[in-house]
Amino acid sequence: MNDRFLRACRRQSVDCTPIWLMRQAGRFLPEYRALRQRHPMMEMIKTPELAVEVTLQPIRRFELDAAIIFADILPPLEAMGVSVEFVRGEGPSIAQPIRAAADIAKLVVPSPEEIAPYTQEAVRLAARELNGRVPLIGFSGAPFTLAGYLIEGGSSADYARARRLMYDATDAWHSLMEKLSLMVGAYLQAQVRAGAQALQLFDSWVGVLSPADYREFVLPYVARTVAMARQAGVPVIYFSTGTAGMLETIATTGADVIGIDWRVDLGEAWKRVGYGVAIQGNLDPLTLLAPLPKLQDRVLHVLGQAGRRDGHIFNLGHGVLQDTPVDNVKALVDLVHRETQRS
Amino acid sequence: MNDRFLRACRRQSVDCTPIWLMRQAGRFLPEYRALRQRHPMMEMIKTPELAVEVTLQPIRRFELDAAIIFADILPPLEAMGVSVEFVRGEGPSIAQPIRAAADIAKLVVPSPEEIAPYTQEAVRLAARELNGRVPLIGFSGAPFTLAGYLIEGGSSADYARARRLMYDATDAWHSLMEKLSLMVGAYLQAQVRAGAQALQLFDSWVGVLSPADYREFVLPYVARTVAMARQAGVPVIYFSTGTAGMLETIATTGADVIGIDWRVDLGEAWKRVGYGVAIQGNLDPLTLLAPLPKLQDRVLHVLGQAGRRDGHIFNLGHGVLQDTPVDNVKALVDLVHRETQRS
Repeated sequence: MNDRFLRACRRQSVDCTPIWLMRQAGRFLPEYRALRQRHPMMEMIKTPELAVEVTLQPIRRFELDAAIIFADILPPLEAMGVSVEFVRGEGPSIAQPIRAAADIAKLVVPSPEEIAPYTQEAVRLAARELNGRVPLIGFSGAPFTLAGYLIEGGSSADYARARRLMYDATDAWHSLMEKLSLMVGAYLQAQVRAGAQALQLFDSWVGVLSPADYREFVLPYVARTVAMARQAGVPVIYFSTGTAGMLETIATTGADVIGIDWRVDLGEAWKRVGYGVAIQGNLDPLTLLAPLPKLQDRVLHVLGQAGRRDGHIFNLGHGVLQDTPVDNVKALVDLVHRETQRS
Repeated sequence: MNDRFLRACRRQSVDCTPIWLMRQAGRFLPEYRALRQRHPMMEMIKTPELAVEVTLQPIRRFELDAAIIFADILPPLEAMGVSVEFVRGEGPSIAQPIRAAADIAKLVVPSPEEIAPYTQEAVRLAARELNGRVPLIGFSGAPFTLAGYLIEGGSSADYARARRLMYDATDAWHSLMEKLSLMVGAYLQAQVRAGAQALQLFDSWVGVLSPADYREFVLPYVARTVAMARQAGVPVIYFSTGTAGMLETIATTGADVIGIDWRVDLGEAWKRVGYGVAIQGNLDPLTLLAPLPKLQDRVLHVLGQAGRRDGHIFNLGHGVLQDTPVDNVKALVDLVHRETQRS
């Protein structure tokens, strides 16, 4: 069994630096696009056999050190009584956004088995298929990012509606975050029971907040969700973008691993979150579209920033871009393994 | 003459903390909207008397400590041979984006008097009208932000085309940045000759870059532009957003004042850029839409972060939002002055 990734999560020594890529099961792969032509997105997510196939595609092609279950952050919200749609070419959206305290009061905190049961089943099947070849990562959107989608109805440049709700209806905001953190915590625990060996919490849009707002309106709920997830006994990765201004605060979430984006040097970020946690990142995804010498140069920069310290998981600073050449991903994986080989 | 702002730029002692707001001459003011209904955007920018009127509107209404000339960052590009359009409701755009080395080769480095002469005239008239009541700030887009617009054709979520040009046509990129920095430097100097008493360089979108890309592809040109601007003998403010991960690098641009966005605590940012520069910022613009107690709380947080140190210019972390209540701006300005009164 390749346990490099799990060992790095725990800052144990490894034979070489582990690597996986956010959105590694995705549109840059021809075999993914072929499947996607025949099945709408929601069908791929809700049919465990299809989700497993997509989860395994990058593992067959590259020497990646972890698989991540193919799923989306919004469907779990359906168990709370929210209707989620996938509009072709536009991504997921919430048909009836949450805008008032009354909407929030109506949200259900579901029992664990009701939350995206097809994804739980996909985790079960994928873990069995992988059979220890590499660990399987389960994941969820973090409470703020889910709240952002619920309130805006989709993604947003500044999440102004969500942030105004914080200020204008503070009690309702806290009630929403309370419900979301209970749902997310339960969902993550269920994925571990189904076979996930690590968990990642995606807080992709929390970087729109000031540190003061993050501490008051978000941090307590991230901390609670992380605590619930860690009770399941596996390492928890907390990933956010645009949060280079508050890494010290991010470190207090209690996560085992802090995932960072590309807009900070990894060495600086690690120093600021402290060496008591592992770090994941942080190559600019666009670098995978660059000529090979430039890609190599930037990969060596990230590795140099990590130094010889145990506890670095190589990843991009955000998801793989659709136009990424498959050969460059192969070159990246091989380069990271080769350059970090411990003698 | 109220010289609080200029003294703070130089980290000299002040009677209270100066404040001005990015986009203070803008759509949140009813008198601006009234004028805007009668004149298209480009006409307002290119008619010096209208630009002066808009520049003065916020100064008449609030006890602000600086005026900033009403202009836009794109029109100066016309002097380089680029066609700039303003589409109603969509903001400025470049009809024929720059995509190839041949396009870049054709760009002209204009002589100073050719660069947005209407804005230079507006600076002259506004400085005369202000007559020392408060200092007048001239400004320009920074080379990267202008390059981003030139290549993308408008604003963009990730500036992927611009960043790919860096990698795929590195020589052409450097040539573009060289031409832009010469133009911007000359334009800023011309504004000082016309009467501007301080300058701000807006690098609003540079936060999409990794620190490594910033250092290689952008920093030398910012440094050159800042050096040209400082030769004119006035303080230079370098403003960027999303750069909390590379504040130490930002400090090496040579600017007298570093403008920061709201996504980092001001005290932390100042420590990282060093106390050898003044700092400007950094209230979240959305906070101006919050109930008054929350607004006050966040203003006191920013002031507390600045402490009693000389060299803080209060501002937002980005421009005033359109929906901002005018009364809240008045409350903000009064609060900052009252709370920071030196005895």
